[in-house]
Amino acid sequence: MPLNIAVIGLGRMGKRHVHTLLYRVPRAKVVAVCTTDPHEIEWAQHNPEYTEFGIAIYDDYDKLLSSQSNLQAVWVSTSTDVHAMQTLKAIEKGLHVLCEKPLSTDLTEAQSVVTAANAHPELKIMAGFSRRFDASYRDAAVKIQRGAIGTPFLVRSNTCDLKDTSGFFVRYASRNGGIFVDCAIHDIDLTLWYLDNPVPKACWAVGSLQAHPELAAAGDVDNAVGMVQFWGGKMAYFYCSRTQAHGHDVLTEITGTEGKVMVNVIPRANAVVLADKGGLRHEVQAEYWQRFEEAFAVEANEFVDAVLGDRRVPVSLETGLVVMKIGRALQDALLSGEVVRFDEGGERLN
Amino acid sequence: MPLNIAVIGLGRMGKRHVHTLLYRVPRAKVVAVCTTDPHEIEWAQHNPEYTEFGIAIYDDYDKLLSSQSNLQAVWVSTSTDVHAMQTLKAIEKGLHVLCEKPLSTDLTEAQSVVTAANAHPELKIMAGFSRRFDASYRDAAVKIQRGAIGTPFLVRSNTCDLKDTSGFFVRYASRNGGIFVDCAIHDIDLTLWYLDNPVPKACWAVGSLQAHPELAAAGDVDNAVGMVQFWGGKMAYFYCSRTQAHGHDVLTEITGTEGKVMVNVIPRANAVVLADKGGLRHEVQAEYWQRFEEAFAVEANEFVDAVLGDRRVPVSLETGLVVMKIGRALQDALLSGEVVRFDEGGERLN
Amino acid sequence: MPLNIAVIGLGRMGKRHVHTLLYRVPRAKVVAVCTTDPHEIEWAQHNPEYTEFGIAIYDDYDKLLSSQSNLQAVWVSTSTDVHAMQTLKAIEKGLHVLCEKPLSTDLTEAQSVVTAANAHPELKIMAGFSRRFDASYRDAAVKIQRGAIGTPFLVRSNTCDLKDTSGFFVRYASRNGGIFVDCAIHDIDLTLWYLDNPVPKACWAVGSLQAHPELAAAGDVDNAVGMVQFWGGKMAYFYCSRTQAHGHDVLTEITGTEGKVMVNVIPRANAVVLADKGGLRHEVQAEYWQRFEEAFAVEANEFVDAVLGDRRVPVSLETGLVVMKIGRALQDALLSGEVVRFDEGGERLN
Amino acid sequence: MPLNIAVIGLGRMGKRHVHTLLYRVPRAKVVAVCTTDPHEIEWAQHNPEYTEFGIAIYDDYDKLLSSQSNLQAVWVSTSTDVHAMQTLKAIEKGLHVLCEKPLSTDLTEAQSVVTAANAHPELKIMAGFSRRFDASYRDAAVKIQRGAIGTPFLVRSNTCDLKDTSGFFVRYASRNGGIFVDCAIHDIDLTLWYLDNPVPKACWAVGSLQAHPELAAAGDVDNAVGMVQFWGGKMAYFYCSRTQAHGHDVLTEITGTEGKVMVNVIPRANAVVLADKGGLRHEVQAEYWQRFEEAFAVEANEFVDAVLGDRRVPVSLETGLVVMKIGRALQDALLSGEVVRFDEGGERLN
Repeated sequence: MPLNIAVIGLGRMGKRHVHTLLYRVPRAKVVAVCTTDPHEIEWAQHNPEYTEFGIAIYDDYDKLLSSQSNLQAVWVSTSTDVHAMQTLKAIEKGLHVLCEKPLSTDLTEAQSVVTAANAHPELKIMAGFSRRFDASYRDAAVKIQRGAIGTPFLVRSNTCDLKDTSGFFVRYASRNGGIFVDCAIHDIDLTLWYLDNPVPKACWAVGSLQAHPELAAAGDVDNAVGMVQFWGGKMAYFYCSRTQAHGHDVLTEITGTEGKVMVNVIPRANAVVLADKGGLRHEVQAEYWQRFEEAFAVEANEFVDAVLGDRRVPVSLETGLVVMKIGRALQDALLSGEVVRFDEGGERLN
Repeated sequence: MPLNIAVIGLGRMGKRHVHTLLYRVPRAKVVAVCTTDPHEIEWAQHNPEYTEFGIAIYDDYDKLLSSQSNLQAVWVSTSTDVHAMQTLKAIEKGLHVLCEKPLSTDLTEAQSVVTAANAHPELKIMAGFSRRFDASYRDAAVKIQRGAIGTPFLVRSNTCDLKDTSGFFVRYASRNGGIFVDCAIHDIDLTLWYLDNPVPKACWAVGSLQAHPELAAAGDVDNAVGMVQFWGGKMAYFYCSRTQAHGHDVLTEITGTEGKVMVNVIPRANAVVLADKGGLRHEVQAEYWQRFEEAFAVEANEFVDAVLGDRRVPVSLETGLVVMKIGRALQDALLSGEVVRFDEGGERLN
Repeated sequence: MPLNIAVIGLGRMGKRHVHTLLYRVPRAKVVAVCTTDPHEIEWAQHNPEYTEFGIAIYDDYDKLLSSQSNLQAVWVSTSTDVHAMQTLKAIEKGLHVLCEKPLSTDLTEAQSVVTAANAHPELKIMAGFSRRFDASYRDAAVKIQRGAIGTPFLVRSNTCDLKDTSGFFVRYASRNGGIFVDCAIHDIDLTLWYLDNPVPKACWAVGSLQAHPELAAAGDVDNAVGMVQFWGGKMAYFYCSRTQAHGHDVLTEITGTEGKVMVNVIPRANAVVLADKGGLRHEVQAEYWQRFEEAFAVEANEFVDAVLGDRRVPVSLETGLVVMKIGRALQDALLSGEVVRFDEGGERLN
Repeated sequence: MPLNIAVIGLGRMGKRHVHTLLYRVPRAKVVAVCTTDPHEIEWAQHNPEYTEFGIAIYDDYDKLLSSQSNLQAVWVSTSTDVHAMQTLKAIEKGLHVLCEKPLSTDLTEAQSVVTAANAHPELKIMAGFSRRFDASYRDAAVKIQRGAIGTPFLVRSNTCDLKDTSGFFVRYASRNGGIFVDCAIHDIDLTLWYLDNPVPKACWAVGSLQAHPELAAAGDVDNAVGMVQFWGGKMAYFYCSRTQAHGHDVLTEITGTEGKVMVNVIPRANAVVLADKGGLRHEVQAEYWQRFEEAFAVEANEFVDAVLGDRRVPVSLETGLVVMKIGRALQDALLSGEVVRFDEGGERLN
């Protein structure tokens, strides 16, 4: 019996998650979708796939929760500001939840989700740190565990988006918590993973506006570099950008005492190289979907298998909290110009 | 309503096709599988997925055809020597067929399949030239069509397998028609695609045995290079190998008057690079499944969509015949040491 | 008439500079070398090349200056602590000087060299920022000047050395001024070049000891990441390491509003790739000589041509001072954990 | 005492050889150059370097030989049709000779040079197979000798030139012996080197005209693929082109039973990559000088050292003869369409 699941949010990612569930997750059945956007409602109503696969369309989350009596799980893919509220409501209803990162831009609210989840150990509540499901990142983890680079002590990780000239990004930006919360969150998560959950000691960041001056109003930048020092001598540094010319460029390097693992340092859209008057050239994927489509399918399958098999979800909610704490500290350092420091327990000091 | 399909053959590829259909093709329903191998039968009977998804298991192809009353299509994935017979029987039964390449190692038999298929235009009969569904090969075709390399006149294409030390390959080799028929068939198909169906004029080939002396008995080699001259000045050359140390290395280069498109000239298993005492290193996929898994999913979806939507299949059976003709000529040249020549109509002269 | 030049210092680099002058700079004649190390003296005395090309060997710099009456120039390649003194003495003697970077680890002393040089405009006094003579860095500069990346605003630059297990590095380390002064100085120089001489505003750095605990005594680390914010929104960040497993890895990326130029992001010792059971692998040069041998030859020729043709030297001494100022600030930030700030004129505030 | 040498021919390569000798070979002294081209004479007379370094300029080879009494060696860099004659005259005069490849397009004439050289063992007579002096090709040889790829059995080697739209190439083409003699000669030489002097058994070639129809008159093509089978099962195949869009693309792959060594399979002008709207792009060197400048310097130094030290020259003249024999056979196969065969002693049968 497949898992009955609803996708909440039908923006760019919500639509993709529906597609992933339909095409890549045979053990799940998409019974409903929900969006408050009339254009998205209309788009769904005219999409023959939604009819073919029998997907109910809702414009109200509460209505969906109350009327879908067979519903077992929701995939929360709305804007960050409602992630926590929607996850909490689902937990109350006894539903399993796969919630897109971050749980919230507010640490207290994020904590409330973790608390609620811990009160319901029978429910599978998972934060969507999709890179943990990517084959290359997993291969890197395996290599590191096997000792290929000795003891890892340094992570460099970039999340750089293609410059968006459609205005889409800027409209959405005010609700995303800032560049380090929105972009670097995956990089921070990977750092915790590869450096074995180090405790932050201090961080600093610099940034500037290169293409989206409108972000100044929200106290944000479109290019930023941040550095984190951990207790014990480990380190990480991140570059986030909204203005890349060549594509979606997401990379991670883990340096250890005996070597280095590089993930996607030279981004490639596919296996094609063109040789012409300009030399040799290959294209780069335009956005993270092309880079991580496969990872999303693995993530969805593993979440569904965890629910159906009553197994632990592969990423804990608590990890998400530490990631948020570092992301916020970097964002604060960026705005204040001051070093943000933590005590040895990881509690923020300023 | 999904398409009811059976997978014939449960060898390495048959199992994978079942998986592709279950996990990647929501519009198909695998109703049955068939194999004459008792070990494969047993394996399938103990595979919980086959139970979960309700797949009937047969040890006899005729029995499957006669008892599965709702069956609409078969995916023929047996050894080459029974491809034609099984396809013909399916056509007689009024079933759509996706048949793994090649249709047959015998040109007359292959022609009989084409004739039968042409007599049943209501049926979708497609040869599985899976590379045509690969994103990189398609991107290459788009670039060429857009004029990125001027007029293409030369193809270099390799199909090189990782050395198989398990004995599996040698056991199977006697039924595969020889290295140019078994390996180069995809390379020849790509050549016809990219050079716009040129007519062969002459070909020659050389080869030798490096790791599998047992192949000598079957008149075959494990490494071979072949060259094809087409009427009008276009050319192609192929390298096929069974003995690569580093992995499954399949590449194609198309040279034109204004540039060159290279597909997978540097093979990579994933986006990971390891830097250590040996320098910088990346792994290569071990076999074609890792390289072409996605292409098989696209192929299966396009076949199913063609059947359900009553649309033309994306690869014609006739192409398969020309491919076979060139493959056989190369194999003959390899064995005889003589140039094999064709007239301007593409009819073989010696 | 060739330029009569002496090489001061016969350590690893001094020997190489002699070789460069003999083999690559036909307009220079090496008339003398000087070293205080008895082993180096002996090595030179038994080197047939020194006899063949008529090179006098001195164990005392003053003696060399007083006895070589035809001497026109010196190449100072000693340890950093005597660079300034030796350069000043040469200036007093009316000699042209090519001085290895940095002029001094002490800013006041470095300033005194600049002052002396400015007082003798008839002499060519050049600091050896060898990367400015490298073909790839120059190509990057040309591309940037032609607008290939729009307006450059961010530099990432690494100087990472192969781990030295011979003990040579640690012995030398106490006199080099710290990791940011010794390693990052080239990266800072490149940043000033590519970002068009921006004024520093603030910097911070973190680092730790991974392989050379002896460095703790000198207040240094063997791995460090530093970040510089410039007035106006430009930024740079640097990674310096003494502990790489794979080789000498020196790279620079310049990001602009319309693109990015990458220099040596994938280091390669040569054009060879080995495919074997481990996948595809290429080696990395072991040290900066292999990477920059050609640049040293260009540098030497340009210095000699500037002297003989009475033309401006290609790198000004003043640039070296700003580079040192930033290098020291990063080193101080590394040790103190505090942000080091500069006013809008580039004067250090703390 | 340096070696007094004259460069014969002041075309593109002759000028470069003079430069190499002046800038890279301190043990040689260029005493004279010779050219029959009045434009080149004039160019040399107005080149200040020729005055500065005291180079005499001749318009007649015999005059040069008779008047330069201190001359010890000549570097023959004229067009192929006079290589043999000039080398023979130099031998008669008791001069050492570095002669550009090939010795002659005529096998009998080439043999006469070898015979003359063998009669004068006191003279160093060397054919300029410059790739043997390239660091990457040498590294490949070392790796192969150390067993990195098991037993090598297959060579793929390309010599592909950037399309010349200046007309220079076509003017010169009539005297170069055809594409396989002019281009593939280095590839054949490398094959003999890496496969340990195998004996040719059969070869075939195809080619066509893509950009230079004028070559038809000389019985030549501008793109050709050729294949050589050696006695014992080793093989080689070559692609030569005059019409590449992206640059000078010269590569070699040696496949063995346990691996493969690839030399310059992805050509790169330098270490720069540009990321912009088109993706990631690097340039390719425009001609062989950029690729092999360093190799020419090594070659010149090793020749001069062999003469001054009375040591064996690093490439034997005999090798050049076998290379020519295979080159001519490929060219003949290209024109006739027939397989050219050799007996087990390497004597041509048709």
